Amino acid sequence: MTSAAPFLIRSVETPSSFANRYAAVRAATERLCVPLHTEDYVVSSMPDVSPTKWHLAHTSWFFETFVLAPFHLDYRALNPKYAFLFNSYYVQAGERHCRAQRGLLTRPTVAEVYAYRAHVDAHMQQVIATIDDDPHHPASAVLELGLHHEQQHQELLVTDIKHVFWTNPMRPAYRPDIRVASTPAAQGWTVIDAGVRSIGYDGQGFHFDNEGPPHREYVQHAALAHRLTTNGEFAEFIADGGYRRPELWLSRGWATVQEHAWRAPLYWESVDDSWHEFTLAGAATLDVHAPVTHVSYFEADAFARWAHMRLPTEAEWEVVARTEPVAGRFSDAELLHPHSEGASGLQQLFGDVWQWTQSAYVAYPGYRASDGALGEYNGKWMSDQWVLRGASCATPASHARATYRNFFPSDARWQFTGIRLAHDADGDFA
Amino acid sequence: MTSAAPFLIRSVETPSSFANRYAAVRAATERLCVPLHTEDYVVSSMPDVSPTKWHLAHTSWFFETFVLAPFHLDYRALNPKYAFLFNSYYVQAGERHCRAQRGLLTRPTVAEVYAYRAHVDAHMQQVIATIDDDPHHPASAVLELGLHHEQQHQELLVTDIKHVFWTNPMRPAYRPDIRVASTPAAQGWTVIDAGVRSIGYDGQGFHFDNEGPPHREYVQHAALAHRLTTNGEFAEFIADGGYRRPELWLSRGWATVQEHAWRAPLYWESVDDSWHEFTLAGAATLDVHAPVTHVSYFEADAFARWAHMRLPTEAEWEVVARTEPVAGRFSDAELLHPHSEGASGLQQLFGDVWQWTQSAYVAYPGYRASDGALGEYNGKWMSDQWVLRGASCATPASHARATYRNFFPSDARWQFTGIRLAHDADGDFA
Amino acid sequence: MTSAAPFLIRSVETPSSFANRYAAVRAATERLCVPLHTEDYVVSSMPDVSPTKWHLAHTSWFFETFVLAPFHLDYRALNPKYAFLFNSYYVQAGERHCRAQRGLLTRPTVAEVYAYRAHVDAHMQQVIATIDDDPHHPASAVLELGLHHEQQHQELLVTDIKHVFWTNPMRPAYRPDIRVASTPAAQGWTVIDAGVRSIGYDGQGFHFDNEGPPHREYVQHAALAHRLTTNGEFAEFIADGGYRRPELWLSRGWATVQEHAWRAPLYWESVDDSWHEFTLAGAATLDVHAPVTHVSYFEADAFARWAHMRLPTEAEWEVVARTEPVAGRFSDAELLHPHSEGASGLQQLFGDVWQWTQSAYVAYPGYRASDGALGEYNGKWMSDQWVLRGASCATPASHARATYRNFFPSDARWQFTGIRLAHDADGDFA
Amino acid sequence: MTSAAPFLIRSVETPSSFANRYAAVRAATERLCVPLHTEDYVVSSMPDVSPTKWHLAHTSWFFETFVLAPFHLDYRALNPKYAFLFNSYYVQAGERHCRAQRGLLTRPTVAEVYAYRAHVDAHMQQVIATIDDDPHHPASAVLELGLHHEQQHQELLVTDIKHVFWTNPMRPAYRPDIRVASTPAAQGWTVIDAGVRSIGYDGQGFHFDNEGPPHREYVQHAALAHRLTTNGEFAEFIADGGYRRPELWLSRGWATVQEHAWRAPLYWESVDDSWHEFTLAGAATLDVHAPVTHVSYFEADAFARWAHMRLPTEAEWEVVARTEPVAGRFSDAELLHPHSEGASGLQQLFGDVWQWTQSAYVAYPGYRASDGALGEYNGKWMSDQWVLRGASCATPASHARATYRNFFPSDARWQFTGIRLAHDADGDFA
Repeated sequence: MTSAAPFLIRSVETPSSFANRYAAVRAATERLCVPLHTEDYVVSSMPDVSPTKWHLAHTSWFFETFVLAPFHLDYRALNPKYAFLFNSYYVQAGERHCRAQRGLLTRPTVAEVYAYRAHVDAHMQQVIATIDDDPHHPASAVLELGLHHEQQHQELLVTDIKHVFWTNPMRPAYRPDIRVASTPAAQGWTVIDAGVRSIGYDGQGFHFDNEGPPHREYVQHAALAHRLTTNGEFAEFIADGGYRRPELWLSRGWATVQEHAWRAPLYWESVDDSWHEFTLAGAATLDVHAPVTHVSYFEADAFARWAHMRLPTEAEWEVVARTEPVAGRFSDAELLHPHSEGASGLQQLFGDVWQWTQSAYVAYPGYRASDGALGEYNGKWMSDQWVLRGASCATPASHARATYRNFFPSDARWQFTGIRLAHDADGDFA
Repeated sequence: MTSAAPFLIRSVETPSSFANRYAAVRAATERLCVPLHTEDYVVSSMPDVSPTKWHLAHTSWFFETFVLAPFHLDYRALNPKYAFLFNSYYVQAGERHCRAQRGLLTRPTVAEVYAYRAHVDAHMQQVIATIDDDPHHPASAVLELGLHHEQQHQELLVTDIKHVFWTNPMRPAYRPDIRVASTPAAQGWTVIDAGVRSIGYDGQGFHFDNEGPPHREYVQHAALAHRLTTNGEFAEFIADGGYRRPELWLSRGWATVQEHAWRAPLYWESVDDSWHEFTLAGAATLDVHAPVTHVSYFEADAFARWAHMRLPTEAEWEVVARTEPVAGRFSDAELLHPHSEGASGLQQLFGDVWQWTQSAYVAYPGYRASDGALGEYNGKWMSDQWVLRGASCATPASHARATYRNFFPSDARWQFTGIRLAHDADGDFA
Repeated sequence: MTSAAPFLIRSVETPSSFANRYAAVRAATERLCVPLHTEDYVVSSMPDVSPTKWHLAHTSWFFETFVLAPFHLDYRALNPKYAFLFNSYYVQAGERHCRAQRGLLTRPTVAEVYAYRAHVDAHMQQVIATIDDDPHHPASAVLELGLHHEQQHQELLVTDIKHVFWTNPMRPAYRPDIRVASTPAAQGWTVIDAGVRSIGYDGQGFHFDNEGPPHREYVQHAALAHRLTTNGEFAEFIADGGYRRPELWLSRGWATVQEHAWRAPLYWESVDDSWHEFTLAGAATLDVHAPVTHVSYFEADAFARWAHMRLPTEAEWEVVARTEPVAGRFSDAELLHPHSEGASGLQQLFGDVWQWTQSAYVAYPGYRASDGALGEYNGKWMSDQWVLRGASCATPASHARATYRNFFPSDARWQFTGIRLAHDADGDFA
Repeated sequence: MTSAAPFLIRSVETPSSFANRYAAVRAATERLCVPLHTEDYVVSSMPDVSPTKWHLAHTSWFFETFVLAPFHLDYRALNPKYAFLFNSYYVQAGERHCRAQRGLLTRPTVAEVYAYRAHVDAHMQQVIATIDDDPHHPASAVLELGLHHEQQHQELLVTDIKHVFWTNPMRPAYRPDIRVASTPAAQGWTVIDAGVRSIGYDGQGFHFDNEGPPHREYVQHAALAHRLTTNGEFAEFIADGGYRRPELWLSRGWATVQEHAWRAPLYWESVDDSWHEFTLAGAATLDVHAPVTHVSYFEADAFARWAHMRLPTEAEWEVVARTEPVAGRFSDAELLHPHSEGASGLQQLFGDVWQWTQSAYVAYPGYRASDGALGEYNGKWMSDQWVLRGASCATPASHARATYRNFFPSDARWQFTGIRLAHDADGDFA
């Protein structure tokens, strides 16, 4: 079995120094833009989508605001208006350009944005030189955060440009070369014993604040699917009237289906009575063996109900993922290759699609957001969203962790989001 | 200390027979309408609000659809269009009138709706006679559900008419007689020990499906406030810039504050630089000792953050409420009188305001909605809402339970919703 | 041939004194409410529709504001909030309640509104006694205006309650007794000679300011249809794909057809493949001989294009109507009876439906709105509307004039609006 | 006195042959794009605004659809999807891409659009060669129309890119070189005698169908201002509370002022208590002598009311403009230079701003749109718009005519639209 959507930033082994890592992450972002024309950088195809050049600039603004401004004494902004244009949502960092208007800006041009990146990079390397890879230097933590922040935007850049291309009736392909065939394994189940478990990041490495503090939770007796739900399985749900049967849906989900006339996952099209999907490689017939992706929580939940299953909780997911030797077999380079099975048979935990859980995105016990603008990073989003676990084909491998808590609202579909089923261990699953 | 908002259905001791209980509950609904003029029954002042006559008719439709239709062989509908007009959200029970248009219907008239109630009541008593108070009769469970359903609509009827009156610049009073003074106790804290607890209803009486199944949860070491947050305490939050400081708010909460220009709880008005509130007794100066009410989750959460506290989880709330002899001192009649303190000092658990928890409204482990239209009762709402615990001044006393899970979205304010603070036991609370 | 929609206020001969006329007009308004239940007075079924009790109160507010306030020294308002609630659009007369919320007010009750009317009426008769029917008394002009204003609201009251009833799936009937059969005459044409004509009111009686000043216009050589377009003729347009052929429509009209999924005039329903219409007498099969009504300008224009005709200009309509002995045969009582033909064969000029013209509603040459709040009566509406001529079945007969300029936007359909065709005299009409 | 906004396509003397004229018009469009970066071509800043590359492509589509398809036997579309993407509103020419999504298309790229233009141009010259400048060749009329159509889009391209730049907080300048100083003449008045006049185009040259047929109209005794209203005069209106006084506004105008918080013409900004304006040359202090521009009909009408004047009718404007030796002194080159006064003192008729009239845009007597898609060009817009006369600084000089009827809705402001006052001849003007 192979990874169904094997697009990934091809990064080399993680370099050890800040200087090398900074250069590598920044370069990885720009490599993602190689297939684009200038025009492609400019547009936002819906409110959730930011233009490519905005991603390029915003990640630079992040370093400028949180590293250069406090730690580089001689730094001068390239253009004072950029602080206004490229702040995303940090209210405490000053006024911001309206998100809805990001796609209306033709200036700065793409060339000017690249010049902005170079300007920031040059000054960042000066700061980095003073840090001397000291993890206790006051700039180290925010520099580290900036690198992970940029990796998050690498994924967003890819999901966003996919939507931009989809919006175009000409259906441009982002990278025609990256599609690979796959064969799904037979489904299997890993059983979780009930009991109190420790949840949350408790190591020494980088992690986002919302992954902690580590704490105890009671986990129920349950079973988790070995592999992800496939396109073919989801097509059976559709063929069985899945999008026409209100009893399968949450109330708001059914309203959403009606309002937007959803009939299939995002990027699926019915052509001459057979399903096609729009991928980063362009339009193609549906790969029934690949993991279903671009489904909302509402669709994942309805599918699970139809299958007489449920979605896992984030604790169940984490408990299982931690028993896997994930770290050992998971590197930046590997995601382009077939996953080997884990010790307990689990597959596709990282590198295919994010997996919806039935856990609402709320604070862990004892969580408190830090003061200041960076405290807005994760904490203020803790309402009306669900936790997703794992990592997708667009996630940089060095960015994935078993404790990572991604989150999106119930109706979000433009991310690489899919389904891993679960069921109560004493349930009716055959 | 007295209950700050002591409005309640004045019901007598719970009668023991179905016949008596049915008659008592139905009569209680109609007693709530005594202060109304015919015009007051007709209007919906916002999408969440249903007209009074719709509540009167819908609760009758519920008995008609789920008891009379299957269990009364000779029943004939008074008007076949009522099934269309008065189905609320039961997709599996047939087509429904659009919720947004409920307030546009002048017919059936109020008199016709009362005639409909009488028609249903007469036939219901015939069915009840055949049940002979046998709890195992197939109609018993749904009859019981219908009574609790009607009690839920008693509360909604009161909250809805309050909003209808508020919408009117003439500020009519619903019941000028029911306002009482109150004095808050000094705040105190009940400590919860960490450990695995059993959560969810595990008794023999009626409960909604979402209160079960009983299951284990790990509860953290924490402390719960003895009493509710008062209007006076919330006014301090406002005076300290609470509605103008984005760092105190969830992101969607801050957006909501901006969009709707919130400056205070719903029903507060600033008159000559002092706060007034609109109550069921009409407009009045703010009672600083009464529990703050008509705050959204966003406001409750922001207030808690401002106070360096947090909201309780629903498990914490339930653990504490269960150790209290709630059942013994909580009856239909008592809520009009001062609450005695519980064994651990806790006050105002039931009968003042619903208390927002930081627990998202999702299924308990092992929960599965039943098949058919009644399975839509609770299960399909399990997204994008929060659990509230307790009971309000508008809740019938016989309807309250320590395991009761009420739920509303983050921005709902027209219910009697308030704040009980909590904090981590090792936190910074003095 | 009979009038197809013969509903009308049955008023007696116009009394000559102000006292009698005031009493008669006010009583006529209240007679229109006799068929209503209290609930019917409260609701607004769409933004254009005002509740019946609002009409009753607003017309009283008009007299209170423009007659009692300046001319009755001892007048005291019954309730000072009524001035806020019942001002419609007179910006210069003070703050107003939001139009969109008119249907949300349950108070004042219907009984209180009638008491308000009685209060105003008693004081108005005192003022009228001081005027002593002197047309030059400073109060006379505004009193006269108030009477015509109330007559306008009589028509709106009827059109609005029709829409309220239509919105109700129970389809209540307003007056089951008023439907009469009709037989259309064969169509004929009155030719208008080209030349300069005098247009606008130039007599001594009451007229609205927008009917003047009288002025010269050049009128083209043209022909006007003798009678109105019938339902049967409009059904042919529909059967010929009228609502599916964009080439027949103005661009905004076609967009409106698409947006609102128009397939027929308002109040038409297709039942078992045949057309039914909702009338003041309730639902009925379509009367193919009656004039088509409840069509927008867009529909009237598209129908005319389909028929290889056009709509008349308001000058053409007025030129023809003025040559008719309209005044002689047009009285309050007559509209319930068949119209006799005019000298030139013209029929149905007044008393059936308002007739869309292709003249935009703009000022006549030399028109200037008067100063003060009453200057807002007609002048400020002179954009984005069309002139309609004639009078409908809901227009009080004593309110109709050949120079009357009614006006509505292109998409308005809830008034009694229909079609009289015209064509260029040298055109291709057979 | 000089032209205040002297931007214009610098075209040479009109060439006589179709081949030369086609080449000249097409080249003029592309010259307008010289100041743009690739990114600037892509964006639509509001629904009325089309991206530059859409204009470039749509004008080519027009020739492709209406000339090449019927008249070039061997023509093959460069890309079959372009017909879908670049049809604007011609319903009878096939399905169209949604106007609201024009700004979301990154492909075809700008380079591809220029290639499309070249492809069309090459084939067009082949067709033109077969026409041999025969005005009676069946392709000649639509070729001529295509040239004027492209000239219309030249103006739109300029107005649209101005709005795109305005939307950008960086305020890019389109052409920093084109601003010139100006000094207004003292105001004067040309009197029009009352009487029947011939209106509409009656010559032999190209004109749009809506300029005819020529017909008689009665024109009133009136006076027209010699020059346009200046920015300075409009600033007086603002200083006198113009945007805060509802009595000056049409009802819909006042609602628009409130809804959009209009406080000045589009592109005006208050900086440190003085007015600045955004021009094609970038941001600048307000030129008080230049004609006010970017005002809506609502603002023009309110200004005129404030000035105790009115706007002219289109007939009045045409009568006066025809008495001027416009043709003689109006050429493509001249607009960059000061206007000489006309025989009757009139100035600034053409080449500064379009002038709102108080004439609604409706059909002239006898007008009938032609069959087929080209019949949609002007006829289907004849509702809810006003006629503007003259020509603006962005209008190609060879495109202007005294009988030209431009039209926009009441609230449109992004065109170069301004004010020429009029008054009744016997009015109160001093």
